Amino acid sequence: MTPEEYLDEHEKQRLDQLIELLKFPSISARSEHNKDIQACAEWLVDHLNSIGIESKIYPTAAHPAVFGSKISSPDKLTVLYYGHYDVQPVEPLDLWHSPPFEPVIKDGRIIARGATDDKGQLMTHVKALEAYMKTGTELPINIKMIFEGDEESGAEALGDFVKNNAELLKADIIVVSDSSQFGKDQPAVTYGLRGIASVEVKITGPDHDLHSGSYGGSVPNPINVLSKIIAGMHDDNGRILIDGFYENVIPITDWEREQFTKLPFARDEFLAEVGSRELHGEKGYSIYEQLWSRPTLDVNGITGGYQGEGGKTIIPSWTSAKITMRLVPNQTPDEILEKFESYFRKICPDYVDCEINIHGGAAAVVVPTDGPWLEAAGKAIKRGFEVDPVFIKEGGSIPVVGTFKNVLGLDTLLLGWGQHDDNAHSPNERFSIDDFERGCYSALALIDELSKVKA
Amino acid sequence: MTPEEYLDEHEKQRLDQLIELLKFPSISARSEHNKDIQACAEWLVDHLNSIGIESKIYPTAAHPAVFGSKISSPDKLTVLYYGHYDVQPVEPLDLWHSPPFEPVIKDGRIIARGATDDKGQLMTHVKALEAYMKTGTELPINIKMIFEGDEESGAEALGDFVKNNAELLKADIIVVSDSSQFGKDQPAVTYGLRGIASVEVKITGPDHDLHSGSYGGSVPNPINVLSKIIAGMHDDNGRILIDGFYENVIPITDWEREQFTKLPFARDEFLAEVGSRELHGEKGYSIYEQLWSRPTLDVNGITGGYQGEGGKTIIPSWTSAKITMRLVPNQTPDEILEKFESYFRKICPDYVDCEINIHGGAAAVVVPTDGPWLEAAGKAIKRGFEVDPVFIKEGGSIPVVGTFKNVLGLDTLLLGWGQHDDNAHSPNERFSIDDFERGCYSALALIDELSKVKA
Repeated sequence: MTPEEYLDEHEKQRLDQLIELLKFPSISARSEHNKDIQACAEWLVDHLNSIGIESKIYPTAAHPAVFGSKISSPDKLTVLYYGHYDVQPVEPLDLWHSPPFEPVIKDGRIIARGATDDKGQLMTHVKALEAYMKTGTELPINIKMIFEGDEESGAEALGDFVKNNAELLKADIIVVSDSSQFGKDQPAVTYGLRGIASVEVKITGPDHDLHSGSYGGSVPNPINVLSKIIAGMHDDNGRILIDGFYENVIPITDWEREQFTKLPFARDEFLAEVGSRELHGEKGYSIYEQLWSRPTLDVNGITGGYQGEGGKTIIPSWTSAKITMRLVPNQTPDEILEKFESYFRKICPDYVDCEINIHGGAAAVVVPTDGPWLEAAGKAIKRGFEVDPVFIKEGGSIPVVGTFKNVLGLDTLLLGWGQHDDNAHSPNERFSIDDFERGCYSALALIDELSKVKA
Repeated sequence: MTPEEYLDEHEKQRLDQLIELLKFPSISARSEHNKDIQACAEWLVDHLNSIGIESKIYPTAAHPAVFGSKISSPDKLTVLYYGHYDVQPVEPLDLWHSPPFEPVIKDGRIIARGATDDKGQLMTHVKALEAYMKTGTELPINIKMIFEGDEESGAEALGDFVKNNAELLKADIIVVSDSSQFGKDQPAVTYGLRGIASVEVKITGPDHDLHSGSYGGSVPNPINVLSKIIAGMHDDNGRILIDGFYENVIPITDWEREQFTKLPFARDEFLAEVGSRELHGEKGYSIYEQLWSRPTLDVNGITGGYQGEGGKTIIPSWTSAKITMRLVPNQTPDEILEKFESYFRKICPDYVDCEINIHGGAAAVVVPTDGPWLEAAGKAIKRGFEVDPVFIKEGGSIPVVGTFKNVLGLDTLLLGWGQHDDNAHSPNERFSIDDFERGCYSALALIDELSKVKA
């Protein structure tokens, strides 16, 4: 029996196994679920061992990681699969149509917390490997699998684990299925992520709130001042005015522009999705260039003075704002945060006090577009989905991908089988069985396509 | 016995009476003190009646007002005295060195809630009138007294009362002692108050918070937008850019500039008082001109997006700000609010939604500087304090003074006997017995000086 035939014959079985996995309420952000997390990790270890991938639990500073491997020859390419078995909290519970940890199938979709994020997606690779092992077909690659238990909890335990176990995790390429297709029936290879740099700023004028009648007109108002500084961050074309901000930005390549031009953009649907009347971005760039390949500066929150009902006639003592910048290759968080700080101090008037708290950041990551990896991934998807994938990027950051690059020096292939409307962090999370299936077949083809890279 | 001799001989008695009045916890903002408010009003009625001013309680939409009068001849000038017998809340109680409604005398000051604001100050006029009545000296003026019970509660009951009782309150001039001297041993006549216009603005971009990674760069960020609008309200010289904002402003007169130039300004003390490192105001104007005779625009509060600990990578759906403008003669709130709204809409970009909620306002008031009132008040103060008063204005608004002007057509003399550091709205409120005494003698002289205006 070939691995393909094995997949053909075991559709019902793997769906049942996914349902079993989805029953664990492995909510990493809630300590009352620590036992469920542990039980879920143990189930995965047993499952991997049962199909011939030698696995065990590795403790981390937070929840356990599951690591398994099957190394058959030093000559073969080694692929490290990453996924996470922990899930988001389920609140608000009353919006769920069925209990989040009692999976049901409806309209061809499996509904449960974790269905798409990420249990359903990680299982596609497990099932593809199983098809090799159970049919006695020689795996043409060495494989390693690391499944995290803290992805949804904000804990940074895996970062430390990667740093402390670089040898264990050594590989040639990383594969992650924890994102979405470009759209329905339009799979994609995500070859880049923007980075991020975060900062909090505070402007202080008077050291206590003052009566705006008695003192208004002669003392600095920190909100007026901060507004002016924030306004000074962009010009009228949406370009960021921080000195040297674009200095290291790699211009958009012709290849990339071509990929993005191929992508359809449904303006009305996009506006409905974001709930905005109009778009607004940096002039001279298409929407996908703005979202994926251009850096940004957004105020995420601002606070200051009286915010209750009615009015209060004060000149507030202070105001603060949280600001994040999205970065693109080759900006680094350190460089950008330094430039932000000098510019902020330069335009901040000397009659107020200015405090800048750097919250840190992560660099953008990108898989080389001229190397063999994207091509292999594209071919595998084409085989699994019978559709040519598109090559896209993502505007957000996935910190672990940056860690893999920085610590292990490895690129990551982001092959998302989900959909944007799978309710990943919302009630009634779901995963199309059709996407699950095509994901399994693509994962199977990926083993073959990646093995050709080394050869 | 002359009225002056009566004052000389009854110092102890009037201090005891003030202490009695200060024992009522007449906190108007707390409904559990409604009975205390009522009892305090009754005490005042009894006290006024006992010295020969026929008085009674008048119900209002909120707490009762006390009204009394002594009209002896239609040929005499009629003076309406205004004061308030309600007091501020006392929290935080643990910062008081003695219970707020158990008055104590320390370092020549009487310490209790309401000592300076306003029970101690209103009593100076009651005691001056008593000196006439109890010595059988004919009052050279007709007098009316209205004492409010809602001044500290934000209730606008007195405004309606004034509108509904314009005939009852008819007079030639109003006298209010509810403010401060210019400084220690430097009494003042306050001949003008700035007005106010209040507004709340809200900018909405997307209709829900968006992930700043996935969407940053292509959708409007309402905080960035509002910051730019606020920044667009002032030029670099601190001048307000709203179209036509200064159109009706009466330029500062030579007389006024001369009065302000006479006033000392202790820059270091002022900076310590406001707790600011530097001053900042409209260029080309002295500090007193900025504070009293120039209009302002201050953001009193701003809110939007994520404000908790750490960060949250969102493009917020909306942000809002509370804004007040201080007005000077002859700006009107309606005119200024209309100009604010058109300018705001003009500079607000069309890719966001903008909502403007007008909270209303009050016009600036000013006592004519070339009429007889200021002179009479100045002479009375000179007689009571043995110091020439200075002529000042106040940057804040006292709404009831505007009501007197608008409804009754009357000017108000603001003769403050308190000090800025009397802790009017803070723990350990106090009133110097020396200021109380000089206030009583000034109030006595005022009766005489005002009677000469009519003659």
